[in-house]
Formats: sequence, C-alpha cells, structure tokens
Amino acid sequence: MITRRKFFSGVAAIAGGSAAISRLARGAEVVANQSPPAVQPGNQPYTPVVTPNGTTLPWKLVDGVKEFHLVAEPVKRVFAEGMMVNCWGYNGQTPGPTIEAMEGDRVRIFVTNHLPEATSIHWHGVILPNGMDGVGGLTQKHIPPGETCAYEFTLKQSGVQMYHPHSDETVQMAMGMQGFFVIHPKGGYAAPVDRHFCIFLQEWFVEPGTFTPNPNVMTDFNLFTFNSRIFPGTDPLVAKLGQRVRVSLANLSMDSHPIHFHGHRWWVVETDGGPIPKSAWWPETTVNVPPGSTRTVEFVADNPGDWAFHCHKNHHTMNAMNHNIPNMIGVNQKETRINKLVPGYMAMGTSGMGEMSEMKMGPPPKNTVAMMTGDGPFGPIAMGGMFTILKIREGITSYDDPGWFRQPEGTGPGFLKS
Amino acid sequence: MITRRKFFSGVAAIAGGSAAISRLARGAEVVANQSPPAVQPGNQPYTPVVTPNGTTLPWKLVDGVKEFHLVAEPVKRVFAEGMMVNCWGYNGQTPGPTIEAMEGDRVRIFVTNHLPEATSIHWHGVILPNGMDGVGGLTQKHIPPGETCAYEFTLKQSGVQMYHPHSDETVQMAMGMQGFFVIHPKGGYAAPVDRHFCIFLQEWFVEPGTFTPNPNVMTDFNLFTFNSRIFPGTDPLVAKLGQRVRVSLANLSMDSHPIHFHGHRWWVVETDGGPIPKSAWWPETTVNVPPGSTRTVEFVADNPGDWAFHCHKNHHTMNAMNHNIPNMIGVNQKETRINKLVPGYMAMGTSGMGEMSEMKMGPPPKNTVAMMTGDGPFGPIAMGGMFTILKIREGITSYDDPGWFRQPEGTGPGFLKS
Amino acid sequence: MITRRKFFSGVAAIAGGSAAISRLARGAEVVANQSPPAVQPGNQPYTPVVTPNGTTLPWKLVDGVKEFHLVAEPVKRVFAEGMMVNCWGYNGQTPGPTIEAMEGDRVRIFVTNHLPEATSIHWHGVILPNGMDGVGGLTQKHIPPGETCAYEFTLKQSGVQMYHPHSDETVQMAMGMQGFFVIHPKGGYAAPVDRHFCIFLQEWFVEPGTFTPNPNVMTDFNLFTFNSRIFPGTDPLVAKLGQRVRVSLANLSMDSHPIHFHGHRWWVVETDGGPIPKSAWWPETTVNVPPGSTRTVEFVADNPGDWAFHCHKNHHTMNAMNHNIPNMIGVNQKETRINKLVPGYMAMGTSGMGEMSEMKMGPPPKNTVAMMTGDGPFGPIAMGGMFTILKIREGITSYDDPGWFRQPEGTGPGFLKS
Repeated sequence: MITRRKFFSGVAAIAGGSAAISRLARGAEVVANQSPPAVQPGNQPYTPVVTPNGTTLPWKLVDGVKEFHLVAEPVKRVFAEGMMVNCWGYNGQTPGPTIEAMEGDRVRIFVTNHLPEATSIHWHGVILPNGMDGVGGLTQKHIPPGETCAYEFTLKQSGVQMYHPHSDETVQMAMGMQGFFVIHPKGGYAAPVDRHFCIFLQEWFVEPGTFTPNPNVMTDFNLFTFNSRIFPGTDPLVAKLGQRVRVSLANLSMDSHPIHFHGHRWWVVETDGGPIPKSAWWPETTVNVPPGSTRTVEFVADNPGDWAFHCHKNHHTMNAMNHNIPNMIGVNQKETRINKLVPGYMAMGTSGMGEMSEMKMGPPPKNTVAMMTGDGPFGPIAMGGMFTILKIREGITSYDDPGWFRQPEGTGPGFLKS
Repeated sequence: MITRRKFFSGVAAIAGGSAAISRLARGAEVVANQSPPAVQPGNQPYTPVVTPNGTTLPWKLVDGVKEFHLVAEPVKRVFAEGMMVNCWGYNGQTPGPTIEAMEGDRVRIFVTNHLPEATSIHWHGVILPNGMDGVGGLTQKHIPPGETCAYEFTLKQSGVQMYHPHSDETVQMAMGMQGFFVIHPKGGYAAPVDRHFCIFLQEWFVEPGTFTPNPNVMTDFNLFTFNSRIFPGTDPLVAKLGQRVRVSLANLSMDSHPIHFHGHRWWVVETDGGPIPKSAWWPETTVNVPPGSTRTVEFVADNPGDWAFHCHKNHHTMNAMNHNIPNMIGVNQKETRINKLVPGYMAMGTSGMGEMSEMKMGPPPKNTVAMMTGDGPFGPIAMGGMFTILKIREGITSYDDPGWFRQPEGTGPGFLKS
Repeated sequence: MITRRKFFSGVAAIAGGSAAISRLARGAEVVANQSPPAVQPGNQPYTPVVTPNGTTLPWKLVDGVKEFHLVAEPVKRVFAEGMMVNCWGYNGQTPGPTIEAMEGDRVRIFVTNHLPEATSIHWHGVILPNGMDGVGGLTQKHIPPGETCAYEFTLKQSGVQMYHPHSDETVQMAMGMQGFFVIHPKGGYAAPVDRHFCIFLQEWFVEPGTFTPNPNVMTDFNLFTFNSRIFPGTDPLVAKLGQRVRVSLANLSMDSHPIHFHGHRWWVVETDGGPIPKSAWWPETTVNVPPGSTRTVEFVADNPGDWAFHCHKNHHTMNAMNHNIPNMIGVNQKETRINKLVPGYMAMGTSGMGEMSEMKMGPPPKNTVAMMTGDGPFGPIAMGGMFTILKIREGITSYDDPGWFRQPEGTGPGFLKS
C-alpha cells in the first residue's frame, strides 16, 4: 500500500531524482540491436536476464524500495536495416525495458504518459492489491497525457510476468506497448541458470510503403517480430557449451506462436502463473505460446552449432508479403500472352519462391524488407520475421556474436550429382 | 440401453408429463442476465454449478432415471442492451441450459426438434454406447423437424462435458447450439468446491445493422461472447473471500480463446477428458481453451477486489468493429482536404481509440453495440465482448452484484501532474 | 559423422544398388488409399506404425547402417474421388512415406531432388550433429535440382518426429512436403502398443476449379486433410476391441488442429520432444496439435462401435466452400424479386445447410468435391476434410474395413413423432 508518506517519497524521488530521470531519458536513445548494459547497482543474487535487441530497466533503492520509471511514448523502431516503424513503447523502446526484481522486493514504479492519449499499466500475472492492478476505469482513472502514476506493491511470488496498458489496449498493444516483468525466486532456482533470454512475440500490420502499424487488423498481419525486430535484424542467442539456458517467451498478440528450436529438446518449466511443479513438466522442441501468456523453457546447451530458432507458423518467418497474389506455381509462363508482348518476362513463383532470395528484383516499396532474406555460410537462409539463431560454442569467453559455426571435418552432409 | 419398456416409459413421461413440458416451455422465457433458479428437486450432494446469464436444466426422477428435455429451436437472444440476435438454441436459450448430474446416474434425455431442419445431439466427451453418440447418419438417423429423439445412458465418469448437434453442425453451432453437461464425481471433489461457474466461449459474425449470424464465416468474426452475452451484458462472477472457486470454460468456436483473470493464479484441473491427476496440474493466469475442449480451473479467492476476467485476444474484448478501415494513427487531420471543406471535422483514431469510449458520436447502425463500452467507478472501462468482472468480497451474504469494490484507504495508485 | 569412406559406401549403395532405387521408384507408383505393405526386411522388435492412406519407407541394411532414399518430386494426389491436386512430395506421395527406425540405429538417408527448385530436409526434433540439420544456407548448401544429398546420423532418442524442407519451406510445405520420422524406444514401450496410427494434419488452398495449391494463402484455407486425403477419402482406423492404440498426429500447417474422437478419452503421452513422464500426462478427448509439433495419444479401445474422429474446428470438417457468400439463414426467399422472375427458385441455406447433403444440385466446378458429403448407415454424414471413423470391433481377424457397426438390439436412441 502506498501511504501518503510513501507516495510523497516517490514524488521526492522524482523531484529530487532528476539525475536518475535524465539518465532514463538517455536510455531512450539506446541504439537498437545492442546488448543490455549491466544496469543494476551492484551485484545481484541472480543471473540477470538478457533481452535480445533490448535492455533491462535501471532502478534505484529508496528507503528499501526499488524505484523504477517507465515513460510511455512514441518510439521509432528499426525492425531491420531498411525498415523503420512508428511505434508506441516505453523509454524509447519497444518492447519496453525488462523489469527485473526479486521475490519479496517492494517495488515502486512511476509511469509517465507522453502519449497523445490516456494510458495505464496492468502488471499481468503479478499478485497485488486491487488498486494497483492498472485497469483503466475499473481500478484506477486512466492516466492522462502529461501525468505520472505511481504504483507500489510487494512481490509475493516468482516467475516471468508482463506489463502492458489496460487503457485503449487493443490499439496500444498493437503499437508495441508491452514488456517483461521478471521476478527471481528468493531461494534461487532448483538448478542454477547460466543464461536466461527474454523474447516478446509480436504481430504487426504495416502496409508496404508506409510507416505506422494498423491496429484495426485482426487476422491478416504481415510482420512478426522477436522483441520488435525481424530477421536478419534479430540478435543471435549465444551460449557456452554445457550451460543451463532458460528462454522466456511472452505473447500479447492475436495468435499463438509455436516457437521451435533445433538440435535439442527443452522442458516447459514456467507459465505466467509461476513455476510448473517438476512432475508436470513436458518435453518439447516447440513450445506453443498462447496470447496473454508467458512460457519459460529450460535446456542444457549440449550440442554445439548454429541452431535455427523460430516460430513454426511458416508465414511468421517471412517478412511482408501479399497473401492474395495469383498462384504461379507450375504455370508455364513462356506461353502466356504477356511473354509474347514482353519476351523474357518471368513472373515470380513459377517454380517456387526459393529463387527470390537470390534474385535482384526491381526496387521494392519504400520502407520494406525483402520477404525472405539473410545470408548464411552456405548461401541464402531465405527467412524473415520471427527467426534467429542459437549459437552454442565451446570455449567462448564473451557473448558477442561468434560468427558462423565451423562444422568439424566430415560432420556435414554429402552431395552427389546424378 | 433403452428397452422398449423404458422407451415407452419415456413416452409416458412426455404424454403424461405435459405439466413438466409446459414448465420447460416457460423456461424459454427466462429473462437473460438472471441467476439460475435452484431447479433440482430436493438437495443435491454437490454444489450446483452457476451458468452466468443462463440456467440449469430441470429434471425429474422416473423409475430411478433422471429425465431431461431439450427443445432445439430458434431463440431471440439479447447479447447486451440494444442488440438482439436471431440464434438457434435449446429451450429458448443459447447456450442451452446446463445439464447437471452425478457419476453413476442413469439419464434419459428427450430432444425435440423445433428447428426448420434436421438435427441431432452429440454428448461430447461422454462415454456411452455407440448408438447414443448422436452422430447423424453414422450412429442414428437425423431427427427431422417435429420429431423427438430419446437418448438414455449411464454416466460412468465425472467431468465437464458438452452437448451440441452433429447434424449440419457448422451451421447449427455457429447459430448458438451448445450447452454444458456437468457430471459431478460420486465421491465428491478432493477439495470441496464452494463456487463453480460455467462459461461457454462463442464467436459470431453478425453484419452490423442485421440480426442473424452468418455461419459461412470462418475467420473474420466480429462478436465474441461469454454464454451468448457481450460486455457490459455479462453477469459478474461473485465469490466470497476465501472460497474455493472452479470455472469451467467450453469452446466449440473456430478459435482458441486464452481466458485470463487478474489478481490470482489458478490451476488447470480438468479437461473434457476428465480430472487431470494433481501431479500434472499447471499453474496459469491464462488458460488457453482450444476448440472442441473444456478446461476447468480452480483457485482460492483470497484477494478481494474487482478483477478483470476476459479473453486475452484483444479484439475479442471489443464489440463489432471494421477490421479494414484506413489507419489514422498519427495522421494530422487538420491538414487534410476534408478539413478545408468541413472545418472541425475529426475522423476517429488519430491519437488512438481511447477517446471513442467517451465521445458522443452520430447514430450507429441499428442493432449494434459500441465497439468499446462499459463504465466503471473510475471512468470508461472501454471493453466489449468476452469480458466480465470477478468480484471477490468479504462478508457478503448473497451472490447478487455487490456493486463496485471500495479500495481500502491508500491502496490505490498515486497521481502526479508534470 | 559421414566419413569419406562411409560417404562413398553411400555412393556405392546408390551406384551398385540401382535395384533398390528402382524399387523405390516403383514405390512412387503406390496407389493412394492403400494399406502399407510390410516393407521392412524381416521381423522388427516393434509394432510397425500404420500411415493411413500412406506407406512406410523401405530401407536396407548396409554395413550396419539403415539406408533410406527419399525423392523430392511433384506428385499428383487424389484427395478424394473426383479431386486430384498437383502437389509436391516424396517418392510419389504426400505426405512422404513414414521413416521408421529404432533408438540407437545409425541411419543414412539419401535425398534426391527432382523438384524444379532447390530443397533440403530438416529432421524436425531429431538430435543430431549441426551439419546434418538440413537448414539450407545455415548448415548446408541447398540441394539443387538433380542432385542427391546424403545425411547420416545415429538416433539417440525415441519419439515421433517429422521431416520437411528447410529451403523455400513456406512454399514447399504448403505444396505437401512433409513426413513422419518414428523412432521406437530401445527397451520397448512401458505398456506394449497393439496399433499405432500416424496422421499428418494439413491445410491447403486450391481455388475451386483449379488443380494447384496456392502457397501465398496465410489464413483462408479451404481444404483440410488427414495424410493429404479428405473425407470420405480417408481410410478408417480399425482396431480390435481391447487393444492399446496410439495415434501420432503431426502438424506443419498455419493453424492448430484440435483433434477429437468419440466414445473414449485418451492420454497425451508424447510430443516431438519425446515421451512425457507419466506423472505429467493429461486426459483429453480432444488433443490440440500446434504447428511445428507432434502429439501422440494413447487409449484402450474398449468401446465397440463406429466413432467419429475429426478436427473440432468445424470448418475443417467441410470441403471447399466460399466463406464470403451472403447469409440466407431465415430469409424468406419466396418473397424475393428473383422468385417473381423464376418461380420455384430456391437459394441454398435458407433453413440451414443440412439439406445440401441430400440435394442434387447443378454441376459443381470441375475438380471439386462437395462441401459436405459421405453416406453412413443412417443417412448422410455430411462431413468433409479432416474426418474419419475409428472402427472398434470384437473378434476381427483383419484390419480391412469391417463395414458399418451393427448396434446391439436396443442400444440406439428412440424416436417419437409429435
């Protein structure tokens, strides 16, 4: 509960803490596609999570309370080189910076509204007093533009939760407003975790040639992102051979996203309802993440290599394409009327679309990334959207991108010409 | 098995039991949005389920058999004030009244067809002899209009199952034909249940300005209901502080519905395949209910307040909207040509859609509810569709709507003007 | 790992083993809708799986390695009588023939590309060295048309996995390229399995009147198949009363498919991540299979009869229909203008669509199967797409279709005219 005194201590923190706030404001200029800085003051009794292409929210301790500050605001987000989208987010980012704390912590979170309309924040899955639940109209008044709202509560649980608006939420979530809220268990994890990645799964419709997501769209999305980035703009997930790795996936979109990875199987160990008792764990290579849910999976990175990590709805690993173009598979285009008029004309897709990843075509619409793209060590990877690479290496000393995996002699497939 | 004698005892029940039938007919006039009457004769060895905005089907005991009567028929259903839909259902209701019985019971269910076409009823998830399975053409002839079909079987299991047509089922289910079939365990529940709500999840497409669902639609639905009601027409779920509560969710629509609630976490304890062994329970705050399934969740209502309870596909908490309108987010409408012609003109959505919940706009199409609506104690809630409120209160003596929660002093968020 | 020597032993197998290859080529002519031959050399220490309407891939033992050969190629597939589709698949089939092996086996799989574009094969869920993972561009070069690629690895796990292209995969999977990869456990199953069915769940869009799937479609599919067949072209699943039955379901489509069966409940025992520990099994009557996943369910066939077995998304049990036709439910067509011009004219759907399964209408578009079809012992079943029948019989001595179930006297429903 926020007593009057505590609330004013919060005010004091804002008033007196302008250095902290301006530091936060600079956070808004964080360059996309960068590893998160170690922002927490001092050492923490947990392995900090990594939010690929994102950051963790700094906090400061005021009278034993961890104080965080989120600024809801328009954000220009580069989804991948060549494509910038007018989003809404927090602190210059979409998804917003990851909130990270410990079970038992008391937290105070200031939310400043720099959007053109009212907002609020709901702490999805967090057990708290009704007044702190953040449902505009029901548990609090909507936060008008220009105002700041202070939430305060004690974390009674552990798990990977989310934060998002509960005020014009269909629009605001479609524009990119969401973030992770990670609460580490007081007693530590049953098996210590070496690496922990947090990836938000998102869907957008940005009309090719335009810059702003259309929040009216309900089913026919054309961009599918990991932390508001599309392949090849997605950071690789780097781990050392033998490490115990967690991946937390969160979804506030309209569709389930079945996230698959190669070379291993993982166990589903948590939902946004908290840790799943070990007797109930399921092994999977694909974890289906329904809307309004998180799923945390755990595995031992015991198989070195470059392993695809992606949504298994195949259109979600492609960038913007038109789903209504005529079907050219198998059409003999040499015999069409247009070929008589334009000799050598070849429409796309007659023998599949694999060729498109290598073709040099005419200029695409502005602000649009190729449907299938990305180059690997053996040629075009021809993916997009929700796709990245889990890079497991022996003997690495940093988590910087280690480049392509060098397959040991004789461990690749053989080729025969017929 | 229905022997000839038993079958005729059923006939007798219909012939001699016209009082019962006319009572059923009156059931068809039950006012929507009302709590179910205690219809079972005498006390039952279980806590009766509550079907919000619906009812439980009365029965009478004939020679040790519980006799029920369902009448398949067109139903005019008020989805919320201002919107009436031409549905099909049972006994004047959609969803049909909830069938409730005990493991070990022998039941006889008469199904009278007052639809303009043939029907049948399949008892989804119920273990019974093949001939009673209700699949038109495969296990029985379709029930022609005007005829009555008598099903009879012994309940060998416990769990929350469903009933629905298996005859022109795509049309008939899209029109509202479905209901709960709850079978309580013979030995009682492991932990006694104080409150048990049953909510059917449904999707519809009703062209704005019209009255009849379009059963041809496969993906682009525009109305999403709890027991054929849209917010704010949905009954609140009222529980006393500390009660053990079950919610059973059933889905026969085309999409999964991830149902989320606030302030707590629940355990998934049953499917339409029956009770899940406790070692396999998952904690969740959002339970994903796939089509053709039920999910029963259980929690202790230990957190007082008004807690949002809704589908987490955000378009499913909005009423009819057009998913193809142009995107106005961020468009400076003062500089558009229409403003030169019509000074002061303002199209919707330029700074989000939150404003729409407060604006007074021109008359909507007839028979249409606002896209985002509902007023709370702190302003517009701006929701629709699959949304209701779980109201947990200390010391209540009835389950009537207790009004808005009064947050204890100092437990709400603080506001600062910047 | 494929050493140079081993690789050439593979070459030798191809060069010297032309008899084997030509036998495989003949496999491409296998007639659809036929039970699989017992193709494995000699007896196996497991119950071979049955791929309804499909086959199992033959292999031969070369120096202790099981050698398989897949040929990627265009395939003309009859979905049901009257409808032939231009697909892509393997060895003349879609889905490709089921690969079946044992935990601990070393396998060598030759993949020959007879498609008009490059391909590759990813062994979904199989734990193997990175170089054998089959991701075009990332772990190997794409296999050009006309070339053969040899994969070799040791099976370290058991479970039901899949194979599919990872090269232009959106197109190639939409065209029908996928298959099962079943690995039986070394020590046998905890409870011996008597029958094991493998069914691939697929979605297609074939414009009525045309022959080729449109791979650009993302949401509005119109054909939904079990092993590339639509009801009534789907083989029944035949089991003896009392047998322990497994069904493995695999999905590489864009949607989850909730597969339901009647008269029993099953346990979900495996995913593509392997066996689920028994403490974590869920009982279900409907198992939801997300894209990029397999689910294996197990039950005892203890209830004799003809039991519907189908996807519970109701549009998925219909064949091609138009989802955008006007809604005629309840329209009094006698009073429309067209009736004044054409007396007796009656558009479809005015009192539902059940009538359509019995009506004789004018000629449909060429190469199109009726939306709702199939005749049962009690009249029209009026289904399509992902629908088949589980036939459980006492005392059968073969798994050939036993015809319709004869309900024991007095076990069917009774009918009353009112």
